Amino acid sequence: MKRRLFLRRLGGGALVAGATLGAGCKPQDTPGQAQEDGRGSFRPVKWKMVTTWPKNFPGLGTGANFLADLITGMSGGRIQVKVYGATELVPAFEVFDAVSRGTAELGHGSAYYWKGKSEAAQFFSAVPFGLTAEEMNAWLYHGGGMELWKETYEPFGLVPMAAGNTGVQMAGWFNREINTIEDLRGLKMRIPGLGGEVLARAGGTPVSLPGGELFTSLQSGAIDATEWVNPYNDLAFGLYKAAKHYYYPGWHEPGTTLECMVNKKAFDALPEDLQAVVTNAARVANQDMLSEYVARNNQALQTLVDEHHVDVRKLPDRVLERLRELSEQVVGEIAEKDPLSRRVFESFQAFRRQVIKWNAISTSAFLNARSG
Amino acid sequence: MKRRLFLRRLGGGALVAGATLGAGCKPQDTPGQAQEDGRGSFRPVKWKMVTTWPKNFPGLGTGANFLADLITGMSGGRIQVKVYGATELVPAFEVFDAVSRGTAELGHGSAYYWKGKSEAAQFFSAVPFGLTAEEMNAWLYHGGGMELWKETYEPFGLVPMAAGNTGVQMAGWFNREINTIEDLRGLKMRIPGLGGEVLARAGGTPVSLPGGELFTSLQSGAIDATEWVNPYNDLAFGLYKAAKHYYYPGWHEPGTTLECMVNKKAFDALPEDLQAVVTNAARVANQDMLSEYVARNNQALQTLVDEHHVDVRKLPDRVLERLRELSEQVVGEIAEKDPLSRRVFESFQAFRRQVIKWNAISTSAFLNARSG
Repeated sequence: MKRRLFLRRLGGGALVAGATLGAGCKPQDTPGQAQEDGRGSFRPVKWKMVTTWPKNFPGLGTGANFLADLITGMSGGRIQVKVYGATELVPAFEVFDAVSRGTAELGHGSAYYWKGKSEAAQFFSAVPFGLTAEEMNAWLYHGGGMELWKETYEPFGLVPMAAGNTGVQMAGWFNREINTIEDLRGLKMRIPGLGGEVLARAGGTPVSLPGGELFTSLQSGAIDATEWVNPYNDLAFGLYKAAKHYYYPGWHEPGTTLECMVNKKAFDALPEDLQAVVTNAARVANQDMLSEYVARNNQALQTLVDEHHVDVRKLPDRVLERLRELSEQVVGEIAEKDPLSRRVFESFQAFRRQVIKWNAISTSAFLNARSG
Repeated sequence: MKRRLFLRRLGGGALVAGATLGAGCKPQDTPGQAQEDGRGSFRPVKWKMVTTWPKNFPGLGTGANFLADLITGMSGGRIQVKVYGATELVPAFEVFDAVSRGTAELGHGSAYYWKGKSEAAQFFSAVPFGLTAEEMNAWLYHGGGMELWKETYEPFGLVPMAAGNTGVQMAGWFNREINTIEDLRGLKMRIPGLGGEVLARAGGTPVSLPGGELFTSLQSGAIDATEWVNPYNDLAFGLYKAAKHYYYPGWHEPGTTLECMVNKKAFDALPEDLQAVVTNAARVANQDMLSEYVARNNQALQTLVDEHHVDVRKLPDRVLERLRELSEQVVGEIAEKDPLSRRVFESFQAFRRQVIKWNAISTSAFLNARSG
């Protein structure tokens, strides 16, 4: 899914849109209207949220807007949040630094973008053959993951929060049939990050391309395949017109977590009730994005199949098996980078081993039984 | 899972425990300390939450406490919530009426308990072969489900909110091997609700028993089988000592939703920011309970298998297939009860049809690929 290059192209042309305020919230920013919270007066603050997404990008950008509205609404206007799309205030991939130094109080992105800051960050967004959304949330909130994420961002003066999830993505759009692992050899595919490294080890050629170029690159044959997100986002891009086959499952991004990072000084300056509001607004946004994607993917898949007659195919088991082996190598190597990455890897892997056993007899067994 | 009889036995012996206040929240209940929220002063209120669970019952009761803490914490003490276990203030199955008439402002339970009030209510907790937690949330928040739930509770002066989920449950503990559907004939099994109706149509004998009697009833042979919840709750009950086989998956309760109902007059009297706090606290609790269950089930399953050598078995495909057919009959009959039940059934079924297709190529395909 990573869309770093997609975002580069947006450049300065995008306009800074207006503040996103919750309906019914009265902004108050004069001292005379300051809130009493029982722990001394708290003067309403205006916060900026910088994002790695284009303003209002469906699912991801609208998820950032939703979170901003929640914070403003639940705080009764005591925190007014204004959302900036990528490049409106800072470029997409300067979000981390901008929030770290306090240029903005909030940032919305996904942790694998900050691999250059800390290799361990990658475990908090998407890992090939890693965890689904439900499992990620269980690891983060009740398996020690959140504590490790906080430790990872602490040196940068940031408080991380999970703030959205795409659910299981699709493997992508292909103009070549994939019947054996050999069919990946020489395949030019747009697939970034760890998934791209896995493809390279299978003999393929991962390429980076902005989202806006996917369609023409597929159509011209400049690439043989591309991944993007899921039916909802992929339908909007019209990729079905440029590719023969739509493969599943998204082994490389099984439950990509989006994040909200908060400048620690700004967070610590809040009274306790507003700290709780910000923390829990992120948890609501985390759940809501997944729910929205599930509902919209349902509809988009139906449109793709019934109206556009898309050829939806499963990657062959043997191909998936080999990709899983290669993924284990690639992910295991992150643990070698530094002691923190080692600890995060070990926590993630221990949870993954257990949850695989539990899901085999719960979610997986139920879904198989229901579909017959 | 339903534990109506379990709760009856608790009787008046349970003590009313103290208020559950969020750490660090200062209660304020004198007019002089009233909050200013920019829309006129709001005097802090003390709310009661009555529950259908024993006080502090793991997962369900502690989930109610968690929700109460969230509301108190995010409201800065402007809403102080005190939790009452079943029978402490009203009997478990008078929770609906108690909140409806304003004896308490909040109630914590699950919607299938209120079938006697409205048949449609059953769709908002658990349906055999219905929706998983992820799917339920998608239907409720982005598929029209929540609007229908509100409509169902509106005549009773109640605002419903989803406030927890057990995830996929287990099929139960059996002292008889289940190899064909014929093995269910004459089976005396503790299984309440719609699942019990399905068992009856398969020739079995569903019986109602309090949770506290499951162990001895299984051991004495008074029953041949029982369902309860999932590894976390089942391990605590020691059921593995009284049954030979632990069957999966929990076809009868694939993602049971817990609820928080709010007295509508009390809710409407809140300023907008506190309405948002209550609504979103429930959403956080909804997600958190599921995450906790997943994490704890992982560990409990490992304990059951490694330490207690439990025989974990899958119900045979042909048995599941027949149970699915019977479930469709039983669930379809609810639609015949009244026009609202018909509309809820149709919305639920339409969403279910779509999400089955989407999950076949996303979650289900991924989980199968990951486990190899």
